[in-house]
Amino acid sequence: MNVSMVIYILGWVMKVEGACMLLPCFIAGIYRERQGLVYLVCALCFLLLGILLTYKRPSNDEIFTKEGMVAVAGSWLVLSFIGAVPFVATGEFTRYIDALFEIASGFTTTGASIRGNIENLCHATLFWRSFSHWIGGMGVLIFVLMLIPGRSGSLMNLMRAESPGYDVTKIVPRIRETAKILYKIYMALTLVQIIVLLLFKMPWFDAVCITFGTAGTGGFGILNSSCAAYTPAQQIIITVFMALFGINFAFFYLIRTGKITHAFKMEEVRVYVGILVAAGLLIGVDTAYLYKTAGETLRTSFFTVVSIMTTTGFSVSDFNLWPVLSKYVLIILMCIGACAGSTGGGMKVSRLIVVMKENRRTLRSHIHQQGVYKIRMDGRALEESTVSMINLFLFLYIATFALSVLVLSFDNFTFETNFTAVAATLNNIGPGLASVGPMNNYGGFSDLSKIVLIFDMIAGRLELFPMLLLFYPGTWKKSI
Amino acid sequence: MNVSMVIYILGWVMKVEGACMLLPCFIAGIYRERQGLVYLVCALCFLLLGILLTYKRPSNDEIFTKEGMVAVAGSWLVLSFIGAVPFVATGEFTRYIDALFEIASGFTTTGASIRGNIENLCHATLFWRSFSHWIGGMGVLIFVLMLIPGRSGSLMNLMRAESPGYDVTKIVPRIRETAKILYKIYMALTLVQIIVLLLFKMPWFDAVCITFGTAGTGGFGILNSSCAAYTPAQQIIITVFMALFGINFAFFYLIRTGKITHAFKMEEVRVYVGILVAAGLLIGVDTAYLYKTAGETLRTSFFTVVSIMTTTGFSVSDFNLWPVLSKYVLIILMCIGACAGSTGGGMKVSRLIVVMKENRRTLRSHIHQQGVYKIRMDGRALEESTVSMINLFLFLYIATFALSVLVLSFDNFTFETNFTAVAATLNNIGPGLASVGPMNNYGGFSDLSKIVLIFDMIAGRLELFPMLLLFYPGTWKKSI
Repeated sequence: MNVSMVIYILGWVMKVEGACMLLPCFIAGIYRERQGLVYLVCALCFLLLGILLTYKRPSNDEIFTKEGMVAVAGSWLVLSFIGAVPFVATGEFTRYIDALFEIASGFTTTGASIRGNIENLCHATLFWRSFSHWIGGMGVLIFVLMLIPGRSGSLMNLMRAESPGYDVTKIVPRIRETAKILYKIYMALTLVQIIVLLLFKMPWFDAVCITFGTAGTGGFGILNSSCAAYTPAQQIIITVFMALFGINFAFFYLIRTGKITHAFKMEEVRVYVGILVAAGLLIGVDTAYLYKTAGETLRTSFFTVVSIMTTTGFSVSDFNLWPVLSKYVLIILMCIGACAGSTGGGMKVSRLIVVMKENRRTLRSHIHQQGVYKIRMDGRALEESTVSMINLFLFLYIATFALSVLVLSFDNFTFETNFTAVAATLNNIGPGLASVGPMNNYGGFSDLSKIVLIFDMIAGRLELFPMLLLFYPGTWKKSI
Repeated sequence: MNVSMVIYILGWVMKVEGACMLLPCFIAGIYRERQGLVYLVCALCFLLLGILLTYKRPSNDEIFTKEGMVAVAGSWLVLSFIGAVPFVATGEFTRYIDALFEIASGFTTTGASIRGNIENLCHATLFWRSFSHWIGGMGVLIFVLMLIPGRSGSLMNLMRAESPGYDVTKIVPRIRETAKILYKIYMALTLVQIIVLLLFKMPWFDAVCITFGTAGTGGFGILNSSCAAYTPAQQIIITVFMALFGINFAFFYLIRTGKITHAFKMEEVRVYVGILVAAGLLIGVDTAYLYKTAGETLRTSFFTVVSIMTTTGFSVSDFNLWPVLSKYVLIILMCIGACAGSTGGGMKVSRLIVVMKENRRTLRSHIHQQGVYKIRMDGRALEESTVSMINLFLFLYIATFALSVLVLSFDNFTFETNFTAVAATLNNIGPGLASVGPMNNYGGFSDLSKIVLIFDMIAGRLELFPMLLLFYPGTWKKSI
């Protein structure tokens, strides 16, 4: 274990986070809020600490898979522990565990809140909540990677550990180039959404915060009613951008480089859009009796379906009051999640496709006694090790899910609450059903449950492996 | 597809079932119930029909995997469709779909009932319900196999399709011998339980019916209160025998042949006992406040844990009223199920062990870049195709589960009801939670939901493949 290199990376994370904290100070300045001072002090402290830790680059800068995983898990823990400080320092959160839950929910783009009333928070804090989505959406380490000078080979292991999905790193062969391309797409889409929302007369603070929440597929709003108070046109715009940020970014890269037919042939994107449309229509039919017009019904059902499947978590209607069928469809969408290589969470559509193909292969070879053939995705053969890793992921996913629900059960909420609370945090969605529905919050859980849910949020964002490796004894052995 | 051979096998199933129906006539005779005549007429009709269908053995008697699967699925459908007839003919069930649900629940050893009050059923019907558990527990086809003269190679494919677990057929190399050994163990254990219950002063009719329900891990009782009215000693005896019938029968074979240390080293049996003890103690602590003495608490918690994990479904207490933690532990036990090679249902402990070992292998090879090694069970290396089939099984299990809950959601019961109704039927347990808890029944579901649940019961009993293959287009293609 190359500890000094891990600490060096954590130092960089602190520096970047400290720098990011200067933005809420700026917002506080605009609204003349005294909380801006708190953010300024915090920002300077963490910047200083970060500079001290990164003063000297370790001579041995090699990062293997294991160090990469530990560095990533550590970075996200540091990010959350530090990010929660201003919440407590402004006095807006009285308990550190609640502040930690809130900011971990932000960075992991979950959007689950501990507070019932958010409208009495200051603008700086509201901005910091939403901005954490934007930072967490693409991943801090990818950003840090572009700043740290070093060999690409080592950095690949870092990026692989942080990226959502199993094959995002393959857009172009060079890692630094890939990171730049991803960030450019991310920034461009963010800018376009802000501009479009402003054109449709959304106030600028709302437009910026809602866009951060959309881009990171986070889901923190700045109103207690989430997105219900916005105009139909604004809601439709948000729906479209949520859907776009849930698509594999390789799709946009292909489009930008002119390979448009290639882009529209991506299997994952097709299945993703298919599921969205089918679920939206099914829920539309099921909930039609609740709304006045067909337009309102479809707008609400598609907003919710897109919001849940992309794991954003905005709401325009209390879907906790919907019929059981619609609620069950939402639970399934929660678990499937968005595309790999997007900012969304969940198991990912591509994993589902690979597992289905693998099982079709097993079935065929069992019935027809055929020989073994390779599983293909977009025409490209997959390595057997990739297929094994996906199986492992699904197993760990189910195991983490089941154990988390077990711990939550000590709190004596209903099964539906516990089940959807874990689904909504492990998949980085935000609102669940029943006592954690869109009109409720996570404040009622015990501290133990909150810790488990914080763990689930970070583990879900990092796709399990980095966080679970912290508990794997082999990680801390001296040799290798 | 060798259709004439499949029909020949179905004819044999009819004959055997017709013969079995003579037993309730006998019971009706003892209690001087006029419903005995109905059973007699039904028995003779099906016997005659079976004799006609098996009058001439087809010249081509080869059974491949596909035919084996279809024959097994067909047999279980025929078994249920025929077995439901007397229920309607006696007038005790007014609708055929309800009678079908009840008897399918019997043969598949589920024990889920459509009726609230069973104490007003005649003795013949109560006996037929319980006897169907005993018939279904070991499998009709295994029994039929011992009667049909033919080549062992073909029959292997039949037995493999019906046996619970993936390796039960390997006790001894010759299939007919294996079947005989299994039935001998089954009958011996059944007899011992009846005798012990009689010694502890249970009325003979109760002792026989409860034993049938225990042996098949079925769960139909003959009292509305299931097993709550029996004495503590009788409840403990039932607990012990439920646990025994949930063990891999290879364990008893090893003991009978003197390989006792070998038997107690079986990994599956150890894990199975470990889970039972852990869950029993955990629930005991969680529910202690509900009962007067520690003895009553432990008796109740262990009875319930064993009843649920072995997928029997007897109850001594309304566990629907237990705290969420205990209910959640029961849900997990529902899905794990008993040992492979027992009469119990569920995913099976051995599958869980193999999947965990497979994932440990993937994790190791990912971290340490180790070479591929074989997965071992009880020291024996497993074929990779076995591992693939287990993965396929788990996938189909989850998919069937999710789709069934989707259809049930149209009925607008709660999520907990739908989820546990599917868990309780697909795993052949019987009672679920909420509206299908131990003090409720399945009568409230729509006909569509009942059909889905009947499908789940049979699919669960046959471990998915035979029933799902009926819907696989390749099964009905002419070639191969």
